[in-house]
Parts: sequence; structure tokens; C-alpha cells
Amino acid sequence: MNQVDIRAIGKVVSPLASRSDAPRQSDEGAPAAWLVFEPAIAEGLRSLKPGDRIILITWLDRANRETLTVHPRGDLARPPEGVFSTRSADRPNPIGLHEVTIEAVEGNRVRVRHLEAIDGTPILDVKSVLTVDIAQR
Amino acid sequence: MNQVDIRAIGKVVSPLASRSDAPRQSDEGAPAAWLVFEPAIAEGLRSLKPGDRIILITWLDRANRETLTVHPRGDLARPPEGVFSTRSADRPNPIGLHEVTIEAVEGNRVRVRHLEAIDGTPILDVKSVLTVDIAQR
Repeated sequence: MNQVDIRAIGKVVSPLASRSDAPRQSDEGAPAAWLVFEPAIAEGLRSLKPGDRIILITWLDRANRETLTVHPRGDLARPPEGVFSTRSADRPNPIGLHEVTIEAVEGNRVRVRHLEAIDGTPILDVKSVLTVDIAQR
Repeated sequence: MNQVDIRAIGKVVSPLASRSDAPRQSDEGAPAAWLVFEPAIAEGLRSLKPGDRIILITWLDRANRETLTVHPRGDLARPPEGVFSTRSADRPNPIGLHEVTIEAVEGNRVRVRHLEAIDGTPILDVKSVLTVDIAQR
């Protein structure tokens, strides 16, 4: 498989210390977290403001990358499904998608509400939720 | 910045040969395309079926990774915005998100409708649209 040259642009700073602390869904009591970005990309953050809905793309670095099938909702009574039909974190490339609301922006730090990613999770990208894909070409 | 060890799990096979061929939005006449996956991860595809809505995550390998600001919708009369408030393909880590419907599955090849990604685009991940994030921890 082809290697992709990708580097984190920041990381999550959160009170969630491990996967077992993380809520099963982001709306179920996930805490606020800081997104701390690298100074080199700070100019790209300049239009973000409180209230914006964003898609945060992370690298779930504590996932199991050998996993190709999972029992739906962890229920061993149910037959295993291919991971690409699920939202399991365990998968060959454990990319996390998190739709969150910005609470505050302070220089290269952005505070968001209800983020289920755990402390230290690398950030790969941030996209607008609302802007249509008109520039994506 | 920290290197992330990520490898493509497949690639897009499409009649779209270049960025200038790609429609501005996926609903505006984007063609069907084949997603051709590596045999090593084929077991993870086994629950995908025609009619499923998926989020296809790609690596937009022809994007400009130095770009930190863009004029909204390419309109030079409008002031530039930080890329992280947009859906521009040009950005430090050009990750593409495409919500598409599966038309056919043939072994490790999956046909999808209305995909604006161009021929040869590396595939990083596939997720269910409908499944809630209950397993994502």
C-alpha cells in the first residue's frame, strides 16, 4: 500500500485520559477540549470564530489497526460486520470525524464543546460544516 | 510536526482525469466511479451493499499543501479566508470527505454514484453514514 505523507497539525488537550473514559457518543456528556495547533499553520485558523460548526479530523492513535471486523455495538451475540460499514475506531487507518461547535479562539488554540477524542489525539484537518463543497476541486 | 503512519487502502478509478474536469459540487453531474481496494483489507468491506450511504475519505494528492488562505468560491473580489473555515482541497493535509451511495459491490471493488474525486485518488478510509458513533471508543 502507498505511504501518504501526512503530519499532525495540532493535538487535542482534553480531560479524557483513555478510551475507557470516553463517552460512547459525543452528545453523551463528552467534555469541552482545547485544540492546540502548530504555529506554522496558524494563519489557516484566522476565520474561525465562536459558534462555528466544524468537522474536526483526527488520528485515533490508540486504535487497533489490525481490526477488519467488529461486533455491532460491541454485542458479541451479533455477527461481526466489516469495519467499513461501521464507525468503529478500530480499522486500518483510524481517522476520526468529529462535528463540534467552537466555544472560543485564542491565537492558535481553539476550544470546542462535547469532544469525545482523548487527550493527546493528533489533529489532521479542520473543515467548515456549512460551506458547500464549491471550492473542493 | 509529527509524522502519521498512514497508507492508502485503495484508489479511485474514475473518468475524471484532472481537477479542471471535476464538477464544483458532487451533485452537479459528477460521474460514477469504482473504488478499488487492496486485497489485504477486503474482509473489512464484506458488509457493504448497494444502496448504502458511506463517507469515503480520500487523500487529495494533487492539492497545494502550502495554501493557508483562499478567496471564498475562488472570487478574488472577496477577502481571503483561513482554509480551515472552508472546504477548499488546498490545505496542509488535503483530506477529502465524500458522502456517496453504493451502486454495486464486486469483490474488492465498490461502485459509487456522483463522486467528484479524480482518477487515481488514494482512498484512506470508508465509514457508515447512518451508524451512530456508539462503537467509536
